Amino acid sequence: MTAPNRATLWGRVLADELAKSGLEAVCIAPGSRSTPLTVAFAEHDGIDAYSHLDERSAAFFALGRARRTGEPTALVCTSGTAAANFHPAVVEADRARVPLLVLTADRPSELRDSGANQTVDQVKLYGDAVRWYAELPEPEADERKVRSLRTTAARALAETGGVSPGPVHVNCPFRKPLEPIAVPGDVPDAFAETTAGRGRDGPFVETASGRRAPAEADRDRLAAALADADRPLLVAGPADPTTLPDLGPAAVTELADRLSAPILADPLSGLRFGPHVDRESGATPAEPRTIYGGYDAYVGELPPPDVVLRIGASPTSKPLRHWLRDADARQFLVDPAGEWREATFTATDLLAADPATVVDGLLEALPDRGGRSEIDRDWRERVESAERRHWAVRDAALAADALAADPFEGAILADVVATAPDPATVFVSNSMPIRDADRFARPRAAELTVLANRGASGIDGITSTALGAGSTTDEPLVLVTGDLAFYHDSNGLLALERCGVDATIVLLDNDGGGIFHELPIEEFEPPFTEQFKTPHGLDFSALEDVYDLAFERVAPADFSAAYRRSLETPGTQVLSVGFDSEASHRRRDDLADRVRGAVATDLEDDA
Amino acid sequence: MTAPNRATLWGRVLADELAKSGLEAVCIAPGSRSTPLTVAFAEHDGIDAYSHLDERSAAFFALGRARRTGEPTALVCTSGTAAANFHPAVVEADRARVPLLVLTADRPSELRDSGANQTVDQVKLYGDAVRWYAELPEPEADERKVRSLRTTAARALAETGGVSPGPVHVNCPFRKPLEPIAVPGDVPDAFAETTAGRGRDGPFVETASGRRAPAEADRDRLAAALADADRPLLVAGPADPTTLPDLGPAAVTELADRLSAPILADPLSGLRFGPHVDRESGATPAEPRTIYGGYDAYVGELPPPDVVLRIGASPTSKPLRHWLRDADARQFLVDPAGEWREATFTATDLLAADPATVVDGLLEALPDRGGRSEIDRDWRERVESAERRHWAVRDAALAADALAADPFEGAILADVVATAPDPATVFVSNSMPIRDADRFARPRAAELTVLANRGASGIDGITSTALGAGSTTDEPLVLVTGDLAFYHDSNGLLALERCGVDATIVLLDNDGGGIFHELPIEEFEPPFTEQFKTPHGLDFSALEDVYDLAFERVAPADFSAAYRRSLETPGTQVLSVGFDSEASHRRRDDLADRVRGAVATDLEDDA
Repeated sequence: MTAPNRATLWGRVLADELAKSGLEAVCIAPGSRSTPLTVAFAEHDGIDAYSHLDERSAAFFALGRARRTGEPTALVCTSGTAAANFHPAVVEADRARVPLLVLTADRPSELRDSGANQTVDQVKLYGDAVRWYAELPEPEADERKVRSLRTTAARALAETGGVSPGPVHVNCPFRKPLEPIAVPGDVPDAFAETTAGRGRDGPFVETASGRRAPAEADRDRLAAALADADRPLLVAGPADPTTLPDLGPAAVTELADRLSAPILADPLSGLRFGPHVDRESGATPAEPRTIYGGYDAYVGELPPPDVVLRIGASPTSKPLRHWLRDADARQFLVDPAGEWREATFTATDLLAADPATVVDGLLEALPDRGGRSEIDRDWRERVESAERRHWAVRDAALAADALAADPFEGAILADVVATAPDPATVFVSNSMPIRDADRFARPRAAELTVLANRGASGIDGITSTALGAGSTTDEPLVLVTGDLAFYHDSNGLLALERCGVDATIVLLDNDGGGIFHELPIEEFEPPFTEQFKTPHGLDFSALEDVYDLAFERVAPADFSAAYRRSLETPGTQVLSVGFDSEASHRRRDDLADRVRGAVATDLEDDA
Repeated sequence: MTAPNRATLWGRVLADELAKSGLEAVCIAPGSRSTPLTVAFAEHDGIDAYSHLDERSAAFFALGRARRTGEPTALVCTSGTAAANFHPAVVEADRARVPLLVLTADRPSELRDSGANQTVDQVKLYGDAVRWYAELPEPEADERKVRSLRTTAARALAETGGVSPGPVHVNCPFRKPLEPIAVPGDVPDAFAETTAGRGRDGPFVETASGRRAPAEADRDRLAAALADADRPLLVAGPADPTTLPDLGPAAVTELADRLSAPILADPLSGLRFGPHVDRESGATPAEPRTIYGGYDAYVGELPPPDVVLRIGASPTSKPLRHWLRDADARQFLVDPAGEWREATFTATDLLAADPATVVDGLLEALPDRGGRSEIDRDWRERVESAERRHWAVRDAALAADALAADPFEGAILADVVATAPDPATVFVSNSMPIRDADRFARPRAAELTVLANRGASGIDGITSTALGAGSTTDEPLVLVTGDLAFYHDSNGLLALERCGVDATIVLLDNDGGGIFHELPIEEFEPPFTEQFKTPHGLDFSALEDVYDLAFERVAPADFSAAYRRSLETPGTQVLSVGFDSEASHRRRDDLADRVRGAVATDLEDDA
């Protein structure tokens, strides 16, 4: 590896080592101080470089890539506030365990705190939100320094994917010249030989990251508790992007079958959708066994579980969380990082271990539950009956004629997921869309990758995250977003053209913060409308003259047809569906009441 | 002060105390956890509440208000990534010494790190970029706690305006209910009496912040050095927003007159424009004495100064900084915070004291410079002659016919400042606009407040900062920005309608990063165009259908007329002037060469 000067050398060694360590993509925002990094990534054949003009959107795009693939994406920016614009996505990556490698260019140390232009304190800029912070040594054709650089690069990438994957921040000081200009003597010719790594194709340092397996005694304790349970339950919350591929749904559903335990599967769990959903139901793929998704409406009507195995993050559904809180059950949290992700503080056991390893271990260790068939059947039948009843009531309520008369946002989410192509990536915004997906997206035997930013649950960066996810796959990409999130990250739409992504964007436009209608502040006017609901009257249709998209206003009753049409049309279509958020809220309440009533009646009839 | 529950009490006491301590405005982004703050600010008559939908733009808007007025503006957001979106503006406020009070709502302590929704680590979120971090006690109707709350509120506001003004972060945990719902017994009736402060209108704690005055010996040392100088020079860099009002131009120009010292005044110094500029030049207001602004082109042709008094931040002009670096002069930095803001490290003395106090002290202590009239006259005449020559060459070059044939961006900056109404606020974006303002904005006897974000010199938040500045005054507001900055903060345009601001926005659209043509990377293709210049082809005209503005494409030759028309037209006009950034760059170089040549010839003729 050679270079015309030390800064160029640094960039090239870094890019080379990251590529050898497995990095496949980088999002770059333009700037001068970052020139050695930008030049090196741009000239590296093995790394896709995406150019972004807004660092905030760039960071969320990178987050989306990493969330979809589970593999780290790198970010590059110049010095100054540019790096601070990465912060929201870094926080989301931290909470959602998404591997991100943030490379911020910086001034050399002597220019810090000296009043030099575009120079701010970037040391540990993201505080505790990163898994590791490293400061690169200043470029120099020095063998130990280059070894250190390669080691740091390999380590940094590996640190994004430890037991708790997340962001890593590497601050990179450079002095001029930043461009690949020849500086005689700066990098001796003889030096080139020594910097190519170890003369092999792999990384300079191979990092192998072990998984936490439970001790046998701990596994057996869990197995015994589950085997003894009368009403065992599996709860799958939102999955971490890097653990999901290993936690095969086959193993989880087999465990549930062995226990006759229902799985309540969050739409982000990676379990609510997939070919496993109906693998035993044969003729009735619309009514799968084992995996249940309608619980938000009916869970309060069920008898409480007595032993709960929880994987993933805290579930989206508040009724589910409260039901578990009030259940007086033994609750095992399994978390690969050993973090506590259960904010009601009623869980009783934390097992810091890899969920896939735990499930496999349980399948081996689970004692026989012989002689319990009646108890078992009764428990799971109740849940299955409630689930069936839920979707029947919902289907009746969402029949096309009823929807035309009384449109509401939940019906769109139901339709989006039910009729999404197989396979597809469906990204769902925070605030109401994810809640509606939780309530109305029925389990389905299709390879749907349903994603959201549920680490910090912000409405920032939604469009960019979705487009980043879409950029990694040829599958159709669907984004369901609200008008506030769509406005917040309108800059992210530039990636449609610059990064070559196509999407169907379903814009639920209720002109402001519809979620506030679900909160008591609705009763306080003022300041409800001006400070909470915040109607803005923005006409997004003009964005089709700015960005690479077609904008279409769609009546709720026409949504299904428009959605199907969009999925078959190249390019990006924004399907804007107008709603009255207050009416949607009333409709959600009404529907939940009806399901609860029907389920309660069923259970009484059974008793 | 009474309240239906403890959270509401907390918000009300906080707003009340901040208002009594002098807070006049708050920018609020909608959210649930921040409800007690939002409700309290919205119902407080003494504080203007501006509602923003993007926290990043909100923070820059608040920064703009505070930068224009020198008075703190508050910010409110909900928990989670919302707070991280404030970070870029917080960094700018830190570096540019702008008083900002950041109030972030948070979950109560038991919900932190528990997997609770929208809960991130907000403790010291902005690291060392804030002057003070405080965590509010959790709301409770407890007398000591309320005294602590009032004291913290008053202190926090005062801390934004110390010797180094800047941002302060107060993290505010709240538990439900967040709305002003009656909670019997939560705030006893009897408690109301004790929480009204001290029964007076003023703040609970009056904070008086002293100024740093130089010791007599230090002042005399500086005075003696200046009095002995053959070529004394005053350099006024970008001014801090809170020190400028005190550092009267009258005193500075009197000092310069006493020393026969030229003042090289940055466009952001608060000295290049103003009635003082021509107060002694009588008939020739276009050619003021004492204050010089064309130095970027000619300073290298002048003999070096031997004693320099520097106030403000590091000047925008690189030729000026390099001339001072190479001057082998005694250079006194005067800084109210005692920070080092001189990145060539050739200054010899740092005086940590208030500049106004230092200048007043010098006027008292300066020894007589009797018998030096010839030396003095010669030195200042050289500078004045160069300055005159500079503007003559420039005026010839920018004559309308030449501009029509060969348009360039600097001519727009020249025109914007030369014909801005008196008074007016002119906000200039970073990258090329501020450099062109430095080079081509002629000193002028008009009350122009020229501002920029030169703390960290980012191109983020430019529109919002300008609109925030404009929201504080009835003066016309002019923003000069490039296309990248305009894109980056397009969300900020929502404030035109929501915050009722009108502006003339001069958009210099050269389709990408024009500044990179000034850097050596221009020679490296690829990656120059794709990763640095980044042409985007965005058609901003459609934004007039989204935001409250009229968009007009203007040919460079027609700019003057369109600009004048806009200044007389209500509402906001975006005047988009298209340029080829490479041609503009060549033109700048050519013009600088011509000035240098002419000045060098003059100096030879004199010699």
